This record gives sequence, C-alpha cells and structure tokens, in this order.
Amino acid sequence: METVTYQVIGTVASPYQSPADVPTDPAQPSTARGSVDLAAKYADGLRGLEEFSHVVLLAHLHRIEQPSLDASPPFLDGDHAFGVFATRSPARPNPIAQTVVRLRGIDGASLDVHGIDLIDGTPVLDVKPYIPGPRGEEVRVGWLTDVLEER
Amino acid sequence: METVTYQVIGTVASPYQSPADVPTDPAQPSTARGSVDLAAKYADGLRGLEEFSHVVLLAHLHRIEQPSLDASPPFLDGDHAFGVFATRSPARPNPIAQTVVRLRGIDGASLDVHGIDLIDGTPVLDVKPYIPGPRGEEVRVGWLTDVLEER
Repeated sequence: METVTYQVIGTVASPYQSPADVPTDPAQPSTARGSVDLAAKYADGLRGLEEFSHVVLLAHLHRIEQPSLDASPPFLDGDHAFGVFATRSPARPNPIAQTVVRLRGIDGASLDVHGIDLIDGTPVLDVKPYIPGPRGEEVRVGWLTDVLEER
Repeated sequence: METVTYQVIGTVASPYQSPADVPTDPAQPSTARGSVDLAAKYADGLRGLEEFSHVVLLAHLHRIEQPSLDASPPFLDGDHAFGVFATRSPARPNPIAQTVVRLRGIDGASLDVHGIDLIDGTPVLDVKPYIPGPRGEEVRVGWLTDVLEER
C-alpha cells in the first residue's frame, strides 16, 4: 500500500482566514471560537460526545504546498531547525493536523468549539473524544520544555 | 474537496498480528514493545524527536472494511452503543488511528516504542511529538469516566 484516500467529513468555521493568522506558540494557545460542521449524515455518529469536555480533531491542512523535512518554529527566538517530525509544523509529508479543542456544545452535526487553531474552510477527517495522555509516566517535551514553562 | 490522499511513510512492527489481539480497554493499556519503521528518506525529519518521551502516531487502520456510525466498546459490560465519534472505535468513516506511545530510542528512520496498540504491518501516516493536553482546564471524559477511574 503506497497511498491511502479519505473522505472529507466536514469543514471548520474559524475566524482565521489564512495560515499566517493562526497562533503557533504553544505557550499562548488559540482562544478562538469556531465550529466543526460535519455533513448532516454524520450527526448520528456524535451520540455521547456531548459529555466530553474536549475533542481531538484530525484535519487536512489544505493550504500546504511545500512539505519539508526541516522545521523552524516561528515562535522561537534565534535560529533553530528541527526535523519536521519533532515539531507540529504544518508543512509535513502528510499535512494532517491533530488538534484538541474544547467542546461547547453540539447541534445536529455541528460542534461549537473553543481554542480552534485551524483556518476557515479546513477539511475535517475525524473527530475523537479527548482522553488525557499517558498516566503515571514521566513526560519530557524536548525543545519545547522552556516554551511550555513560560505558560 | 471531497477526498484527500496521503503517502504511507512507514510501517508498524508489533507483536499483535490481528485486530482481535490488540488491548482496547483504556484502563489496561498496551505494554507491548514495537517499532515504527519509516522509509529511510524520512530519517532527517526525526532530528530532535529523541528528546521527547512520547510520540503521537497517526496510522491507517488497514484492516477496517465496514465503518459504522455506531460503536459498542468491547470492554464495557452490558449493552452500550455510542456514536462512533464519541469512541476510539477503529471502524470509523476514516479509519485513522491516533495513538500515543513511549519512545525508547531512534535508530536511523526506525523508532523503538513501548505501548503500541496497532497490529503488525499497520501503515504509518505521521509522527508528531507528544505534548500534554489542555492545561488549566477541567477535562471530562463522558462515558469513559468510570472506566478510567478503575486504573
């Protein structure tokens, strides 16, 4: 298997119109309100999600044209280059965003969300309940350590 | 845009040979060791990832044939059905797995990982550094509350 193909199941509505508008510094995450508007046929798949406070979105970063194996996080001072897989850079071989947003409510097939960091019109591939990560294990965040301590 | 197509960038090596072998109960997560073997050309993209303790894998659940909007978690007693987007069921409209594993080491384009819950041969789409989720926000996990409290 060399390639895989997915259906777009919905679209993001967001105040951000272009990638340059989206906050990238994890110490100052987006507080923008938006929505995830799935196709109406998927409404039934959302039963029970309303009891979760946060959801994981997988979305296609449709404005990425030039993937790279190098990434220089725009929010770091000075010259830093990492491998793209050590960053959340959107310009990755497969431009799939994985982002966690707070769920404010669900109306039919539409999710009202807080903290969206995707641009308006971003195609959505999947919605999952957010479950906190590895418990009881020490977590190290490499080059992001100093950045996150600034929060 | 109706569909999106991605390149497979690597493959999972795992002791699990079939979906039925994979632990699904989040109260008893996988402790299996495995590897994520990217194509050699992606090795450069991993620079800096070795300083992270955990990584997020996005992978294609290639054995899923019958997606459904309903999901009945196999680890729950009794009869429970939720919408698929309120669960981590693999049988979802776009069968993309998002899983967090502990990184033991990197050798070239190969990641040695702990806690893999994907079957042997699973195609890999992306690798991202794991960054702990929403800070300073209350997290509610809906129907999983009792399950996770058993941990």
